[in-house]
Amino acid sequence: MTTYDDVEVSVLGLGAMGSALAAALLKAGHPTTVWNRSAGKAGDLVGQGAVSVDTAGEAVRASRLVIACLLDHASVHEVLDPLAAELTGRVLVNLTTTSPAQARELAAWAADAGVEYLDGGIMAVPAMIGQPGSSILYSGSAVAFEQYKPLFDQWGASSYHGTDAGLASLYDLALLAGMYVMFAGFVHGAAMVAPAGMTAGEFAAMAAPWLTAMTGAFQEIATVVDGGDYTVAGQQSLEFSDLGDIVAASSDQGISTEVVDMVQRLIRRQIDAGHGTDGFARIVESIRQPG
Amino acid sequence: MTTYDDVEVSVLGLGAMGSALAAALLKAGHPTTVWNRSAGKAGDLVGQGAVSVDTAGEAVRASRLVIACLLDHASVHEVLDPLAAELTGRVLVNLTTTSPAQARELAAWAADAGVEYLDGGIMAVPAMIGQPGSSILYSGSAVAFEQYKPLFDQWGASSYHGTDAGLASLYDLALLAGMYVMFAGFVHGAAMVAPAGMTAGEFAAMAAPWLTAMTGAFQEIATVVDGGDYTVAGQQSLEFSDLGDIVAASSDQGISTEVVDMVQRLIRRQIDAGHGTDGFARIVESIRQPG
Repeated sequence: MTTYDDVEVSVLGLGAMGSALAAALLKAGHPTTVWNRSAGKAGDLVGQGAVSVDTAGEAVRASRLVIACLLDHASVHEVLDPLAAELTGRVLVNLTTTSPAQARELAAWAADAGVEYLDGGIMAVPAMIGQPGSSILYSGSAVAFEQYKPLFDQWGASSYHGTDAGLASLYDLALLAGMYVMFAGFVHGAAMVAPAGMTAGEFAAMAAPWLTAMTGAFQEIATVVDGGDYTVAGQQSLEFSDLGDIVAASSDQGISTEVVDMVQRLIRRQIDAGHGTDGFARIVESIRQPG
Repeated sequence: MTTYDDVEVSVLGLGAMGSALAAALLKAGHPTTVWNRSAGKAGDLVGQGAVSVDTAGEAVRASRLVIACLLDHASVHEVLDPLAAELTGRVLVNLTTTSPAQARELAAWAADAGVEYLDGGIMAVPAMIGQPGSSILYSGSAVAFEQYKPLFDQWGASSYHGTDAGLASLYDLALLAGMYVMFAGFVHGAAMVAPAGMTAGEFAAMAAPWLTAMTGAFQEIATVVDGGDYTVAGQQSLEFSDLGDIVAASSDQGISTEVVDMVQRLIRRQIDAGHGTDGFARIVESIRQPG
């Protein structure tokens, strides 16, 4: 088994996330070259041993493995289009947040340029990089993933999801959707209890362990969704799940009901279609079929 | 310190939850009398040592402590209105799911009848009763809570939230709102990845640890909400949180976007009002002010 801490790597983009990625590589002992469009971002990293360069071209030439963590899809093209010839034969790992379609477009662009392309979706905030709980999803070049997985593992648990470069991004966005929707539900709950004198902090102390425990129901819901039989015994029915009490209590507290109305609509469409005694998992049918 | 396992208790209502509550009391050694409107529900409990009676009146007369876990608010009145005189001087703990207003109405009814009234909101599914992770919120009679807390702790962690009998229900509904909204977000994510060949079970295996980790952000959001200053440095901005990519990817997968549209509307209303560089926590302002 080769050791990997001598793998040279270049990081393009030193926002909060790019800086965290570079810092983790330096900590693991990798010779790391860093570049940022605007100056003044590399100071701390240089103190940790990074080589800071003035142009993206210098950064690309410094390492076979090039990590991009830029603002968006357009930024990636802006920075790398002029460097296509220099990227040929190198490995580009794009951790910039993009849509699945944009990731596929970049993969095609890289293929034309003779670049091994791997797309990644980071399931962590910058402070979590290199810590337990951080994970990064990859798709695209299997060769690149296999070769550099030990390096990627410095950032968090690394998983590979196939040659379609868009999949890491799709899964990333699906998990982020879950996160933002959960956050909206938490904030709604905090707004419900606020008029009764409970602080958001007090509500958070109840809601975090409660919702953590309730993630235990995901597999049950998933088993029903995958099985496709919403009548399986032991499920909580759609009628029992009706959010009428929650919507009314929200309204009584003088707040908007739109957060919980969303769930109620998913439930009511299935009840109205005659499926009230089916399990809650049937709301997936409301989501699958755009109104 | 008195031991409590000789406290006699009666349980009205033997649905899945009422049965789980009675079973936990029997396991702890309490002499337990049970009643259900329709016959045939008490068999297992009698095997565990319960005394099953044919009328609610017999159950009420059997114990000073009476637990109600019935279908809804109307059922509580239907069962207990004729027994008001017999309830006088006893303690009624109502664990039936009701709205805050309904809990307050029952507390007033109980006060008229000379009954100590405690309302509870169960933060658990029946299988969790008596297990780690189960908790029950109480409000109403402080005397009743203090006296019987050791018994309540047989069901899960017990917490008291003040003399307003409606508060336990309000907090219960706020936490349930968070749960249902989180479930909708999870099912949306599963629907996003399904066309790419990922099963809901595979998505659940990624989403459960991810969302568990992300509950860690609740306190940060809460600190900003409680502080009221959405400009504090280090927050993720509303503009950065814009769900455009997620909405577009959902739409590209051919599914309804209504789940994520909900969050996007909360964000966009604040951006449109000129607060785009403020932190994500500002979505609470969209929820506080009904449209």
